Amino acid sequence: MNEFSLIKQFFQPFPLHHSSTVFGIGDDAACVEIPSGKQLVVSTDTLVSGVHFLPEWKPYDIAYRSVAVAVSDIAAMGAEASSLTLALTLPDLCPQWLTLFTQGLKDALHVYQIDLIGGDTTRGPLSITLTVMGMVAAGQAVRRNGAQAEDVIFISGQLGGAALAIDDLKKNQLQEPDRVAVMEHLLRPKARLDLAHLLGKYASSAIDISDGLSADLNHICTASKVGATLIQQSIPIHPLVHQYLADKAIDLALCGGDDYELCFTVPAKQLSLFQDELNKAHLLCYPIGIIDETMGLRMKTEKDEYKILTPKGYSHFS
Amino acid sequence: MNEFSLIKQFFQPFPLHHSSTVFGIGDDAACVEIPSGKQLVVSTDTLVSGVHFLPEWKPYDIAYRSVAVAVSDIAAMGAEASSLTLALTLPDLCPQWLTLFTQGLKDALHVYQIDLIGGDTTRGPLSITLTVMGMVAAGQAVRRNGAQAEDVIFISGQLGGAALAIDDLKKNQLQEPDRVAVMEHLLRPKARLDLAHLLGKYASSAIDISDGLSADLNHICTASKVGATLIQQSIPIHPLVHQYLADKAIDLALCGGDDYELCFTVPAKQLSLFQDELNKAHLLCYPIGIIDETMGLRMKTEKDEYKILTPKGYSHFS
Repeated sequence: MNEFSLIKQFFQPFPLHHSSTVFGIGDDAACVEIPSGKQLVVSTDTLVSGVHFLPEWKPYDIAYRSVAVAVSDIAAMGAEASSLTLALTLPDLCPQWLTLFTQGLKDALHVYQIDLIGGDTTRGPLSITLTVMGMVAAGQAVRRNGAQAEDVIFISGQLGGAALAIDDLKKNQLQEPDRVAVMEHLLRPKARLDLAHLLGKYASSAIDISDGLSADLNHICTASKVGATLIQQSIPIHPLVHQYLADKAIDLALCGGDDYELCFTVPAKQLSLFQDELNKAHLLCYPIGIIDETMGLRMKTEKDEYKILTPKGYSHFS
Repeated sequence: MNEFSLIKQFFQPFPLHHSSTVFGIGDDAACVEIPSGKQLVVSTDTLVSGVHFLPEWKPYDIAYRSVAVAVSDIAAMGAEASSLTLALTLPDLCPQWLTLFTQGLKDALHVYQIDLIGGDTTRGPLSITLTVMGMVAAGQAVRRNGAQAEDVIFISGQLGGAALAIDDLKKNQLQEPDRVAVMEHLLRPKARLDLAHLLGKYASSAIDISDGLSADLNHICTASKVGATLIQQSIPIHPLVHQYLADKAIDLALCGGDDYELCFTVPAKQLSLFQDELNKAHLLCYPIGIIDETMGLRMKTEKDEYKILTPKGYSHFS
């Protein structure tokens, strides 16, 4: 089997979901139609074996998680995801591995209703680069640089679950049902496309929490030239983090990445409309703090003390 | 230096050339405006160190060639290139290497007037994945599947130069000025964006010759459900290939990849208009054969014999 028969066997029978795909795999390039009044958003993520996932993980999970991680960036722009390309570097050609990998890929594409439209397969140490595309009403992409003083900071879900799973990969101390529950956060993060439309309407800035809340909120603050104060007891933390790592719970929530919830800001005068629409859509988001004019990150603790936060998160090359 | 300061130092000061870029690096995703009446074309290429380039090559050349190789796919669609994302996996963080690499990247982006709009940097064995985007008039993308019997097969330039350079990397037998000349073909292939507009107007099918003429023409034939007959003496071969490897010249032209010229077909009744426009644009293309109803590839030799061609070219995993 060579590269061409590999593509034909494993990647050409992919079903298509999105109306924007004119044609996908099989030509020098794919072709996508962007409806009038919309702009394209594009994001590229690389996941390297041993760095972003473990080589012993199930190929299904590696594929599924890669798609969710990539699509999360489109959600953070307040955009609708439409398609992606996959650059897959494989150490060798194992049909069984590829069968499971493409099954995870297909299921994730189905969940997010997006199309695999192209890519490349090469030989080398296992790594996956996804370029994911989406669409947003022209001029409505939610950027990192729009937060203003007095905007309310929200996050879209509980934090720390994925970090607890990573912690447990080393320590192996969680009971089986709990381990399964937190591994679900790590292996199957939910890209919050369900919130994208409301972000586009109400958010002044947004980012997905891939590196950790403090690091990612700091990106918003730096880009927006503002600061932020978090209210410790408002930060929603996964209950199993409290149960197993009570002492480190707030640290995991602030510095553990990989949950892929969204962190975003909403101007105070938009709050009630935003909350109404959240309720109607049966969606829950958590207000966790306020944007300040003064640069830097602070946290008001449960003892009403103010603590300076040093943005910490996962960083390659550090 | 971590990933964020790396991006800031090396990748954020990139100049922008193309009007379609709304915003590029620095957010969760970039944003691109597709003008009304146009469609997006997208292609992804991975270049792995030791497979697609040699680790000892100058970082400038690795970057420059990677961009040309990626952009070539957009030219083969008859489209205008506009922007790209770069996923760069590096074994370590060497500022000197990155300075030279980004210089090659900048120069190639300037030559093709396209924008670096996003990407990812990760740690791992050196590899480069480029996702390049372009635009084409709606419905006018030139695909592989449009060739019809009696269409004339063209290529856009001489073949074999890059294959001779690769041959000489092992044998080291070329004289210095000749080595420099063919290495130029290998390290600085020209993505034929200058032909893209005419392809969009006249070509019934097109592909870029990355794997070798016989392999790539075979892709057109398979997709179009046709065959092809090449005329051996019409195939333009780099003069240094004749000089150094006379016995293998036709093999290098048929099976050597990496020249990144375009192979395309033009319906017979469009030929004179196509030729007129080529002349006006001071561009030269070579008619090298005819599309047949009968599947398979044949070549009429200089002795007027017909030879069956087995499509051969570079393939990973083989």
